[in-house]
Amino acid sequence: MEKPPSSEVKTAAVLVIGDEILSGRTQDTNTNYIARFLGLKGIDLKEARVVGDVQGEIVAALNALRAAYDFVFTTGGIGPTHDDITADAVAAAFGAGIGFHPEAYALLEARYGKAGFNPMRQRMARIPHGAALIENRVSAAPGFQIGNVFVLAGVPAIARAMLETLVLPQGPKVHAVTITAPIAEGRVAERLAAIQKDQPETAIGSYPFYTADGAFGVQLVVRGRDDGAVQAAAAAIEAHLRGFGVAAQRVI
Amino acid sequence: MEKPPSSEVKTAAVLVIGDEILSGRTQDTNTNYIARFLGLKGIDLKEARVVGDVQGEIVAALNALRAAYDFVFTTGGIGPTHDDITADAVAAAFGAGIGFHPEAYALLEARYGKAGFNPMRQRMARIPHGAALIENRVSAAPGFQIGNVFVLAGVPAIARAMLETLVLPQGPKVHAVTITAPIAEGRVAERLAAIQKDQPETAIGSYPFYTADGAFGVQLVVRGRDDGAVQAAAAAIEAHLRGFGVAAQRVI
Repeated sequence: MEKPPSSEVKTAAVLVIGDEILSGRTQDTNTNYIARFLGLKGIDLKEARVVGDVQGEIVAALNALRAAYDFVFTTGGIGPTHDDITADAVAAAFGAGIGFHPEAYALLEARYGKAGFNPMRQRMARIPHGAALIENRVSAAPGFQIGNVFVLAGVPAIARAMLETLVLPQGPKVHAVTITAPIAEGRVAERLAAIQKDQPETAIGSYPFYTADGAFGVQLVVRGRDDGAVQAAAAAIEAHLRGFGVAAQRVI
Repeated sequence: MEKPPSSEVKTAAVLVIGDEILSGRTQDTNTNYIARFLGLKGIDLKEARVVGDVQGEIVAALNALRAAYDFVFTTGGIGPTHDDITADAVAAAFGAGIGFHPEAYALLEARYGKAGFNPMRQRMARIPHGAALIENRVSAAPGFQIGNVFVLAGVPAIARAMLETLVLPQGPKVHAVTITAPIAEGRVAERLAAIQKDQPETAIGSYPFYTADGAFGVQLVVRGRDDGAVQAAAAAIEAHLRGFGVAAQRVI
Protein backbone atom coordinates (compact mmCIF):
# COMPACT_ATOMS: atom_id res chain seq x y z
CA MET A 1 0.00 0.00 0.00
CA GLU A 2 1.05 3.54 -0.63
CA LYS A 3 1.95 5.63 2.35
CA PRO A 4 -0.98 7.97 2.96
CA PRO A 5 -0.43 11.72 2.74
CA SER A 6 -0.25 13.55 6.06
CA SER A 7 -3.45 15.38 5.22
CA GLU A 8 -5.36 12.11 5.48
CA VAL A 9 -7.60 11.86 8.51
CA LYS A 10 -6.93 8.77 10.60
CA THR A 11 -9.62 7.15 12.69
CA ALA A 12 -9.45 5.40 16.04
CA ALA A 13 -11.47 3.43 18.57
CA VAL A 14 -11.07 2.81 22.29
CA LEU A 15 -11.73 -0.58 23.86
CA VAL A 16 -12.03 -0.45 27.65
CA ILE A 17 -11.59 -3.88 29.23
CA GLY A 18 -12.78 -4.59 32.75
CA ASP A 19 -15.64 -5.91 34.86
CA GLU A 20 -15.16 -2.96 37.22
CA ILE A 21 -16.45 -0.51 34.61
CA LEU A 22 -19.55 -2.59 33.80
CA SER A 23 -20.38 -3.20 37.48
CA GLY A 24 -20.26 0.55 38.10
CA ARG A 25 -17.46 0.20 40.67
CA THR A 26 -15.18 2.37 38.55
CA GLN A 27 -15.98 5.46 36.50
CA ASP A 28 -13.99 5.14 33.27
CA THR A 29 -11.93 8.25 32.59
CA ASN A 30 -9.46 6.76 30.12
CA THR A 31 -11.80 7.14 27.15
CA ASN A 32 -12.19 10.86 27.77
CA TYR A 33 -8.44 11.32 28.18
CA ILE A 34 -7.63 9.37 25.02
CA ALA A 35 -10.34 11.31 23.14
CA ARG A 36 -8.72 14.63 24.03
CA PHE A 37 -5.23 13.25 23.36
CA LEU A 38 -6.28 12.08 19.88
CA GLY A 39 -8.06 15.38 19.22
CA LEU A 40 -4.77 17.21 19.64
CA LYS A 41 -3.15 14.74 17.23
CA GLY A 42 -5.81 15.39 14.59
CA ILE A 43 -6.99 11.78 14.81
CA ASP A 44 -10.76 11.17 14.90
CA LEU A 45 -12.05 8.93 17.70
CA LYS A 46 -15.08 7.28 16.09
CA GLU A 47 -16.21 4.69 18.60
CA ALA A 48 -15.61 3.38 22.12
CA ARG A 49 -16.61 0.10 23.69
CA VAL A 50 -16.47 -1.42 27.14
CA VAL A 51 -16.35 -5.19 27.61
CA GLY A 52 -15.80 -7.36 30.66
CA ASP A 53 -12.95 -9.71 31.55
CA VAL A 54 -14.16 -12.41 29.16
CA GLN A 55 -11.78 -13.57 26.44
CA GLY A 56 -14.43 -14.21 23.79
CA GLU A 57 -15.91 -10.75 24.23
CA ILE A 58 -12.54 -9.02 24.13
CA VAL A 59 -11.56 -10.92 20.97
CA ALA A 60 -14.83 -10.17 19.18
CA ALA A 61 -14.77 -6.46 20.03
CA LEU A 62 -11.09 -6.08 19.18
CA ASN A 63 -11.43 -7.80 15.83
CA ALA A 64 -14.42 -5.63 14.90
CA LEU A 65 -12.67 -2.41 15.90
CA ARG A 66 -9.25 -3.10 14.41
CA ALA A 67 -10.85 -3.92 11.07
CA ALA A 68 -12.97 -0.75 11.08
CA TYR A 69 -10.50 1.91 12.26
CA ASP A 70 -6.88 2.89 11.72
CA PHE A 71 -5.93 2.59 15.39
CA VAL A 72 -7.37 0.87 18.44
CA PHE A 73 -6.39 1.72 22.01
CA THR A 74 -7.24 -0.79 24.71
CA THR A 75 -7.07 -0.08 28.44
CA GLY A 76 -7.04 -2.54 31.30
CA GLY A 77 -6.25 -6.14 32.04
CA ILE A 78 -2.44 -6.22 31.83
CA GLY A 79 -1.58 -6.68 35.52
CA PRO A 80 -0.37 -9.76 37.41
CA THR A 81 -3.67 -11.19 38.69
CA HIS A 82 -5.89 -13.96 37.31
CA ASP A 83 -8.42 -11.44 35.97
CA ASP A 84 -5.78 -9.79 33.77
CA ILE A 85 -6.35 -11.59 30.48
CA THR A 86 -5.86 -8.85 27.90
CA ALA A 87 -2.51 -10.07 26.52
CA ASP A 88 -3.89 -13.56 25.90
CA ALA A 89 -7.06 -12.17 24.36
CA VAL A 90 -5.12 -9.87 22.02
CA ALA A 91 -2.88 -12.73 20.97
CA ALA A 92 -5.96 -14.84 20.27
CA ALA A 93 -7.56 -12.02 18.27
CA PHE A 94 -4.46 -11.82 16.06
CA GLY A 95 -3.99 -15.59 15.92
CA ALA A 96 -0.52 -14.95 17.37
CA GLY A 97 1.45 -16.95 19.86
CA ILE A 98 2.34 -15.51 23.24
CA GLY A 99 5.28 -15.97 25.57
CA PHE A 100 7.85 -14.25 27.73
CA HIS A 101 9.30 -11.18 26.03
CA PRO A 102 12.97 -11.09 27.02
CA GLU A 103 13.13 -7.30 27.45
CA ALA A 104 9.87 -7.19 29.44
CA TYR A 105 11.05 -10.11 31.58
CA ALA A 106 14.38 -8.44 32.29
CA LEU A 107 12.93 -5.07 33.25
CA LEU A 108 10.30 -6.60 35.51
CA GLU A 109 12.87 -8.84 37.16
CA ALA A 110 15.02 -5.78 37.78
CA ARG A 111 12.08 -3.97 39.34
CA TYR A 112 10.91 -6.73 41.68
CA GLY A 113 14.23 -8.45 42.36
CA LYS A 114 14.77 -12.15 41.75
CA ALA A 115 13.01 -13.12 44.99
CA GLY A 116 9.98 -10.87 44.40
CA PHE A 117 9.54 -11.77 40.73
CA ASN A 118 7.02 -14.53 41.37
CA PRO A 119 5.14 -16.52 38.70
CA MET A 120 2.12 -14.18 38.74
CA ARG A 121 4.30 -11.10 38.23
CA GLN A 122 6.07 -13.00 35.46
CA ARG A 123 2.69 -13.09 33.67
CA MET A 124 3.19 -9.39 32.95
CA ALA A 125 6.15 -10.31 30.73
CA ARG A 126 3.95 -12.48 28.51
CA ILE A 127 3.57 -10.51 25.28
CA PRO A 128 2.06 -11.65 21.97
CA HIS A 129 4.65 -12.64 19.40
CA GLY A 130 5.44 -9.80 17.03
CA ALA A 131 4.39 -7.04 19.42
CA ALA A 132 6.56 -4.05 20.34
CA LEU A 133 6.71 -2.93 23.97
CA ILE A 134 5.19 0.34 25.16
CA GLU A 135 7.20 1.84 27.99
CA ASN A 136 5.61 2.21 31.44
CA ARG A 137 7.49 4.95 33.32
CA VAL A 138 5.20 4.60 36.35
CA SER A 139 5.25 0.94 37.36
CA ALA A 140 7.52 -0.87 34.84
CA ALA A 141 5.02 -3.45 33.48
CA PRO A 142 4.92 -2.56 29.79
CA GLY A 143 2.05 -2.21 27.38
CA PHE A 144 2.50 -3.29 23.81
CA GLN A 145 1.63 -2.56 20.20
CA ILE A 146 0.65 -5.25 17.74
CA GLY A 147 -0.53 -4.27 14.30
CA ASN A 148 -2.77 -1.23 14.71
CA VAL A 149 -3.64 -2.03 18.33
CA PHE A 150 -2.08 -0.25 21.31
CA VAL A 151 -2.53 -2.11 24.59
CA LEU A 152 -2.41 0.24 27.59
CA ALA A 153 -2.84 -0.18 31.34
CA GLY A 154 -6.16 0.52 33.04
CA VAL A 155 -4.82 2.65 35.91
CA PRO A 156 -5.31 6.16 34.52
CA ALA A 157 -1.91 7.55 35.52
CA ILE A 158 -0.19 4.63 33.79
CA ALA A 159 -2.40 4.75 30.70
CA ARG A 160 -1.57 8.44 30.33
CA ALA A 161 2.15 7.91 30.76
CA MET A 162 2.04 5.16 28.12
CA LEU A 163 0.16 7.39 25.67
CA GLU A 164 2.86 10.03 25.98
CA THR A 165 5.48 7.59 24.74
CA LEU A 166 3.64 6.71 21.53
CA VAL A 167 4.70 8.05 18.18
CA LEU A 168 1.48 8.69 16.30
CA PRO A 169 1.09 10.57 13.02
CA GLN A 170 0.00 14.19 13.34
CA GLY A 171 -3.18 14.55 11.32
CA PRO A 172 -4.84 17.71 10.11
CA LYS A 173 -5.74 19.92 13.08
CA VAL A 174 -9.34 20.12 14.30
CA HIS A 175 -10.46 23.68 15.02
CA ALA A 176 -13.18 24.21 17.59
CA VAL A 177 -15.09 27.19 18.92
CA THR A 178 -17.42 26.88 21.92
CA ILE A 179 -20.00 29.58 22.57
CA THR A 180 -22.07 29.63 25.75
CA ALA A 181 -25.27 31.61 26.17
CA PRO A 182 -28.07 31.76 28.75
CA ILE A 183 -30.84 30.78 26.35
CA ALA A 184 -32.91 27.66 25.71
CA GLU A 185 -31.53 25.69 22.76
CA GLY A 186 -35.01 25.30 21.32
CA ARG A 187 -35.12 29.05 20.62
CA VAL A 188 -31.99 29.00 18.45
CA ALA A 189 -32.41 25.53 16.95
CA GLU A 190 -33.95 26.59 13.62
CA ARG A 191 -31.23 29.08 12.78
CA LEU A 192 -28.59 26.65 14.03
CA ALA A 193 -29.82 24.04 11.55
CA ALA A 194 -29.57 26.60 8.75
CA ILE A 195 -26.01 27.52 9.75
CA GLN A 196 -25.10 23.82 9.83
CA LYS A 197 -26.48 23.52 6.28
CA ASP A 198 -24.51 26.58 5.16
CA GLN A 199 -21.28 25.19 6.62
CA PRO A 200 -21.37 21.47 5.85
CA GLU A 201 -17.64 21.13 6.49
CA THR A 202 -18.27 21.82 10.16
CA ALA A 203 -20.08 19.81 12.83
CA ILE A 204 -22.22 21.97 15.09
CA GLY A 205 -23.27 20.50 18.42
CA SER A 206 -25.79 21.93 20.85
CA TYR A 207 -25.52 20.99 24.53
CA PRO A 208 -28.04 22.33 27.03
CA PHE A 209 -27.03 22.77 30.65
CA TYR A 210 -28.82 23.33 33.92
CA THR A 211 -27.13 24.67 37.03
CA ALA A 212 -28.00 23.83 40.62
CA ASP A 213 -29.43 27.32 41.20
CA GLY A 214 -31.99 26.86 38.40
CA ALA A 215 -30.16 28.78 35.69
CA PHE A 216 -29.92 27.18 32.26
CA GLY A 217 -28.38 27.77 28.90
CA VAL A 218 -26.66 26.13 26.00
CA GLN A 219 -23.15 25.49 24.80
CA LEU A 220 -22.81 25.55 21.04
CA VAL A 221 -19.73 23.84 19.69
CA VAL A 222 -18.46 24.24 16.14
CA ARG A 223 -15.75 21.80 15.08
CA GLY A 224 -14.03 21.21 11.80
CA ARG A 225 -10.75 21.07 9.93
CA ASP A 226 -11.45 24.16 7.80
CA ASP A 227 -10.82 27.03 10.22
CA GLY A 228 -12.47 29.53 7.88
CA ALA A 229 -15.69 27.53 7.92
CA VAL A 230 -15.52 27.07 11.69
CA GLN A 231 -15.04 30.81 12.24
CA ALA A 232 -17.81 31.67 9.77
CA ALA A 233 -20.26 29.34 11.50
CA ALA A 234 -19.27 30.68 14.93
CA ALA A 235 -19.72 34.27 13.77
CA ALA A 236 -23.15 33.43 12.34
CA ILE A 237 -24.16 31.84 15.65
CA GLU A 238 -22.94 34.87 17.60
CA ALA A 239 -24.84 37.22 15.29
CA HIS A 240 -27.99 35.18 15.83
CA LEU A 241 -27.57 35.23 19.61
CA ARG A 242 -27.10 39.03 19.58
CA GLY A 243 -30.60 39.22 18.10
CA PHE A 244 -31.94 37.81 21.35
CA GLY A 245 -30.02 40.33 23.45
CA VAL A 246 -28.35 37.57 25.52
CA ALA A 247 -24.74 37.59 26.62
CA ALA A 248 -22.96 35.02 24.47
CA GLN A 249 -19.38 34.19 25.36
CA ARG A 250 -16.66 32.13 23.78
CA VAL A 251 -15.35 29.47 26.13
CA ILE A 252 -11.58 29.26 26.05
CA MET B 1 -42.22 -17.50 24.36
CA GLU B 2 -42.58 -18.60 27.93
CA LYS B 3 -42.26 -15.97 30.58
CA PRO B 4 -38.83 -16.45 32.17
CA PRO B 5 -38.65 -17.21 35.87
CA SER B 6 -37.65 -14.33 38.11
CA SER B 7 -34.44 -16.15 39.02
CA GLU B 8 -33.24 -15.75 35.44
CA VAL B 9 -30.40 -13.27 35.03
CA LYS B 10 -31.19 -10.58 32.48
CA THR B 11 -28.46 -8.84 30.51
CA ALA B 12 -28.16 -5.28 29.29
CA ALA B 13 -26.05 -2.92 27.20
CA VAL B 14 -25.64 0.86 27.16
CA LEU B 15 -25.33 2.82 23.93
CA VAL B 16 -24.09 6.37 24.46
CA ILE B 17 -24.84 8.59 21.45
CA GLY B 18 -23.01 11.86 20.92
CA ASP B 19 -20.07 13.51 19.19
CA GLU B 20 -19.32 15.36 22.44
CA ILE B 21 -18.23 12.15 24.15
CA LEU B 22 -15.93 11.10 21.29
CA SER B 23 -14.36 14.56 20.94
CA GLY B 24 -13.54 14.54 24.65
CA ARG B 25 -15.63 17.65 25.33
CA THR B 26 -17.85 15.71 27.71
CA GLN B 27 -16.96 13.02 30.24
CA ASP B 28 -19.69 10.39 30.02
CA THR B 29 -21.14 9.62 33.43
CA ASN B 30 -24.40 8.03 32.31
CA THR B 31 -22.84 4.61 31.73
CA ASN B 32 -21.55 4.46 35.30
CA TYR B 33 -24.89 5.58 36.71
CA ILE B 34 -26.84 3.05 34.65
CA ALA B 35 -24.33 0.33 35.61
CA ARG B 36 -24.95 0.94 39.31
CA PHE B 37 -28.71 1.26 38.77
CA LEU B 38 -28.82 -2.10 36.97
CA GLY B 39 -26.61 -3.70 39.61
CA LEU B 40 -29.23 -2.91 42.23
CA LYS B 41 -31.86 -4.46 39.95
CA GLY B 42 -29.86 -7.67 39.61
CA ILE B 43 -29.45 -7.07 35.87
CA ASP B 44 -25.99 -7.67 34.37
CA LEU B 45 -24.55 -4.85 32.25
CA LYS B 46 -22.44 -6.75 29.70
CA GLU B 47 -21.30 -4.11 27.22
CA ALA B 48 -21.28 -0.37 26.57
CA ARG B 49 -20.62 1.50 23.35
CA VAL B 50 -20.22 5.12 22.35
CA VAL B 51 -21.01 6.27 18.81
CA GLY B 52 -21.26 9.71 17.25
CA ASP B 53 -24.22 11.57 15.79
CA VAL B 54 -24.24 9.48 12.60
CA GLN B 55 -27.39 7.57 11.74
CA GLY B 56 -25.70 4.57 10.16
CA GLU B 57 -23.43 4.09 13.15
CA ILE B 58 -26.28 4.38 15.65
CA VAL B 59 -28.39 1.89 13.68
CA ALA B 60 -25.58 -0.66 13.38
CA ALA B 61 -24.65 -0.48 17.06
CA LEU B 62 -28.25 -0.59 18.24
CA ASN B 63 -29.12 -3.58 16.09
CA ALA B 64 -26.06 -5.48 17.31
CA LEU B 65 -26.79 -4.73 20.96
CA ARG B 66 -30.55 -5.31 20.98
CA ALA B 67 -30.02 -8.72 19.38
CA ALA B 68 -27.36 -9.71 21.89
CA TYR B 69 -28.84 -8.52 25.20
CA ASP B 70 -32.20 -8.46 26.97
CA PHE B 71 -32.24 -4.67 27.36
CA VAL B 72 -30.49 -1.73 25.73
CA PHE B 73 -30.36 1.76 27.24
CA THR B 74 -29.42 4.62 24.94
CA THR B 75 -28.52 8.11 26.12
CA GLY B 76 -28.36 11.31 24.11
CA GLY B 77 -29.70 12.84 20.93
CA ILE B 78 -33.36 13.42 21.77
CA GLY B 79 -33.36 17.24 22.00
CA PRO B 80 -34.69 19.86 19.56
CA THR B 81 -31.56 20.64 17.53
CA HIS B 82 -30.39 19.34 14.16
CA ASP B 83 -27.78 17.08 15.79
CA ASP B 84 -30.48 15.22 17.76
CA ILE B 85 -31.12 12.25 15.50
CA THR B 86 -31.64 9.38 17.92
CA ALA B 87 -35.42 8.98 17.40
CA ASP B 88 -34.99 8.71 13.63
CA ALA B 89 -32.08 6.32 14.00
CA VAL B 90 -33.98 4.08 16.40
CA ALA B 91 -36.98 4.04 14.07
CA ALA B 92 -34.68 3.09 11.19
CA ALA B 93 -33.07 0.32 13.27
CA PHE B 94 -36.50 -1.19 13.96
CA GLY B 95 -37.79 -0.54 10.44
CA ALA B 96 -40.57 1.45 12.08
CA GLY B 97 -42.26 4.63 10.95
CA ILE B 98 -41.96 7.82 12.95
CA GLY B 99 -44.26 10.75 13.52
CA PHE B 100 -45.80 13.06 16.09
CA HIS B 101 -46.94 11.18 19.17
CA PRO B 102 -50.17 12.89 20.30
CA GLU B 103 -49.41 12.68 24.02
CA ALA B 104 -45.83 13.88 23.58
CA TYR B 105 -47.01 16.70 21.33
CA ALA B 106 -49.64 17.80 23.84
CA LEU B 107 -47.31 17.83 26.84
CA LEU B 108 -44.58 19.70 24.99
CA GLU B 109 -47.09 22.24 23.66
CA ALA B 110 -48.34 22.75 27.20
CA ARG B 111 -44.80 23.32 28.43
CA TYR B 112 -43.68 25.80 25.76
CA GLY B 113 -47.04 27.44 25.00
CA LYS B 114 -48.45 27.62 21.50
CA ALA B 115 -46.20 30.55 20.54
CA GLY B 116 -43.01 28.95 21.88
CA PHE B 117 -43.68 25.49 20.45
CA ASN B 118 -41.73 26.06 17.26
CA PRO B 119 -41.02 23.44 14.57
CA MET B 120 -37.67 22.45 16.08
CA ARG B 121 -39.19 21.87 19.51
CA GLN B 122 -41.95 19.91 17.79
CA ARG B 123 -39.22 17.49 16.65
CA MET B 124 -39.07 16.25 20.25
CA ALA B 125 -42.64 14.90 19.82
CA ARG B 126 -41.54 12.69 16.92
CA ILE B 127 -41.56 9.15 18.32
CA PRO B 128 -41.18 5.85 16.46
CA HIS B 129 -44.48 4.10 15.83
CA GLY B 130 -45.22 1.48 18.45
CA ALA B 131 -43.05 3.07 21.14
CA ALA B 132 -44.25 3.90 24.66
CA LEU B 133 -43.24 7.23 26.22
CA ILE B 134 -40.83 7.48 29.14
CA GLU B 135 -41.71 10.36 31.43
CA ASN B 136 -39.30 13.27 31.82
CA ARG B 137 -40.02 15.01 35.12
CA VAL B 138 -37.21 17.49 34.60
CA SER B 139 -37.77 19.12 31.22
CA ALA B 140 -40.91 17.50 29.74
CA ALA B 141 -39.46 16.13 26.48
CA PRO B 142 -40.05 12.39 26.86
CA GLY B 143 -37.86 9.40 26.19
CA PHE B 144 -39.40 6.25 24.83
CA GLN B 145 -39.28 2.47 24.88
CA ILE B 146 -39.55 0.38 21.74
CA GLY B 147 -39.06 -3.37 21.97
CA ASN B 148 -36.21 -3.99 24.39
CA VAL B 149 -34.67 -0.55 23.85
CA PHE B 150 -35.03 2.34 26.32
CA VAL B 151 -34.18 5.73 24.82
CA LEU B 152 -33.06 8.23 27.47
CA ALA B 153 -31.83 11.82 27.42
CA GLY B 154 -28.12 12.65 27.47
CA VAL B 155 -28.23 15.30 30.21
CA PRO B 156 -27.39 13.24 33.30
CA ALA B 157 -30.06 14.68 35.60
CA ILE B 158 -32.72 13.89 32.99
CA ALA B 159 -31.36 10.44 32.18
CA ARG B 160 -31.45 9.60 35.89
CA ALA B 161 -34.99 10.89 36.35
CA MET B 162 -36.13 8.81 33.36
CA LEU B 163 -34.45 5.66 34.74
CA GLU B 164 -36.38 6.07 38.00
CA THR B 165 -39.69 5.86 36.13
CA LEU B 166 -38.92 2.53 34.43
CA VAL B 167 -40.47 -0.70 35.59
CA LEU B 168 -37.75 -3.31 35.17
CA PRO B 169 -37.80 -6.86 36.47
CA GLN B 170 -35.93 -7.44 39.72
CA GLY B 171 -33.34 -10.11 39.02
CA PRO B 172 -31.39 -12.18 41.52
CA LYS B 173 -29.34 -9.90 43.76
CA VAL B 174 -25.60 -9.51 43.24
CA HIS B 175 -23.61 -9.68 46.48
CA ALA B 176 -20.29 -7.87 46.63
CA VAL B 177 -17.52 -7.51 49.18
CA THR B 178 -14.65 -5.08 48.69
CA ILE B 179 -11.46 -5.46 50.73
CA THR B 180 -8.74 -2.85 50.66
CA ALA B 181 -5.18 -3.47 51.82
CA PRO B 182 -1.87 -1.61 51.60
CA ILE B 183 -0.05 -4.33 49.68
CA ALA B 184 1.10 -4.82 46.09
CA GLU B 185 -1.34 -7.03 44.19
CA GLY B 186 1.52 -9.09 42.78
CA ARG B 187 2.24 -10.42 46.28
CA VAL B 188 -1.26 -11.85 46.74
CA ALA B 189 -1.98 -12.78 43.11
CA GLU B 190 -1.11 -16.48 43.34
CA ARG B 191 -3.36 -17.17 46.33
CA LEU B 192 -6.07 -14.99 44.77
CA ALA B 193 -6.07 -17.17 41.66
CA ALA B 194 -6.46 -20.26 43.84
CA ILE B 195 -9.38 -18.70 45.73
CA GLN B 196 -11.00 -17.81 42.40
CA LYS B 197 -10.63 -21.44 41.34
CA ASP B 198 -12.13 -22.64 44.64
CA GLN B 199 -15.13 -20.32 44.26
CA PRO B 200 -15.99 -20.43 40.55
CA GLU B 201 -19.45 -18.95 41.22
CA THR B 202 -17.80 -15.67 42.19
CA ALA B 203 -15.85 -13.14 40.14
CA ILE B 204 -12.83 -11.80 41.96
CA GLY B 205 -11.32 -8.55 40.68
CA SER B 206 -8.03 -6.99 41.74
CA TYR B 207 -7.58 -3.23 41.37
CA PRO B 208 -4.30 -1.60 42.34
CA PHE B 209 -4.28 2.02 43.44
CA TYR B 210 -1.66 4.69 43.94
CA THR B 211 -2.20 7.81 46.02
CA ALA B 212 -0.68 11.22 45.44
CA ASP B 213 1.56 10.86 48.51
CA GLY B 214 3.18 7.73 47.11
CA ALA B 215 1.19 5.15 49.06
CA PHE B 216 -0.22 2.19 47.17
CA GLY B 217 -2.38 -0.82 47.70
CA VAL B 218 -5.05 -2.96 46.19
CA GLN B 219 -8.80 -3.26 46.30
CA LEU B 220 -10.04 -6.83 45.98
CA VAL B 221 -13.65 -7.17 44.92
CA VAL B 222 -15.65 -10.40 45.19
CA ARG B 223 -18.98 -10.42 43.39
CA GLY B 224 -21.56 -13.10 42.83
CA ARG B 225 -25.15 -14.16 43.28
CA ASP B 226 -24.34 -16.91 45.84
CA ASP B 227 -23.75 -14.96 49.03
CA GLY B 228 -22.24 -17.99 50.75
CA ALA B 229 -19.62 -18.30 48.02
CA VAL B 230 -18.93 -14.54 48.10
CA GLN B 231 -18.45 -14.57 51.88
CA ALA B 232 -16.27 -17.68 51.72
CA ALA B 233 -14.02 -16.12 49.08
CA ALA B 234 -13.84 -12.84 51.03
CA ALA B 235 -12.94 -14.70 54.24
CA ALA B 236 -10.22 -16.64 52.42
CA ILE B 237 -8.78 -13.39 51.05
CA GLU B 238 -8.81 -11.79 54.50
CA ALA B 239 -7.10 -14.83 56.01
CA HIS B 240 -4.40 -14.61 53.34
CA LEU B 241 -3.88 -10.88 53.96
CA ARG B 242 -3.52 -11.49 57.71
CA GLY B 243 -0.55 -13.68 56.89
CA PHE B 244 1.25 -10.58 55.60
CA GLY B 245 0.45 -8.61 58.74
CA VAL B 246 -1.16 -5.78 56.74
CA ALA B 247 -4.34 -3.97 57.77
CA ALA B 248 -7.08 -5.21 55.46
CA GLN B 249 -10.42 -3.46 55.66
CA ARG B 250 -13.81 -4.05 54.15
CA VAL B 251 -15.03 -1.06 52.18
CA ILE B 252 -18.67 -0.27 52.91
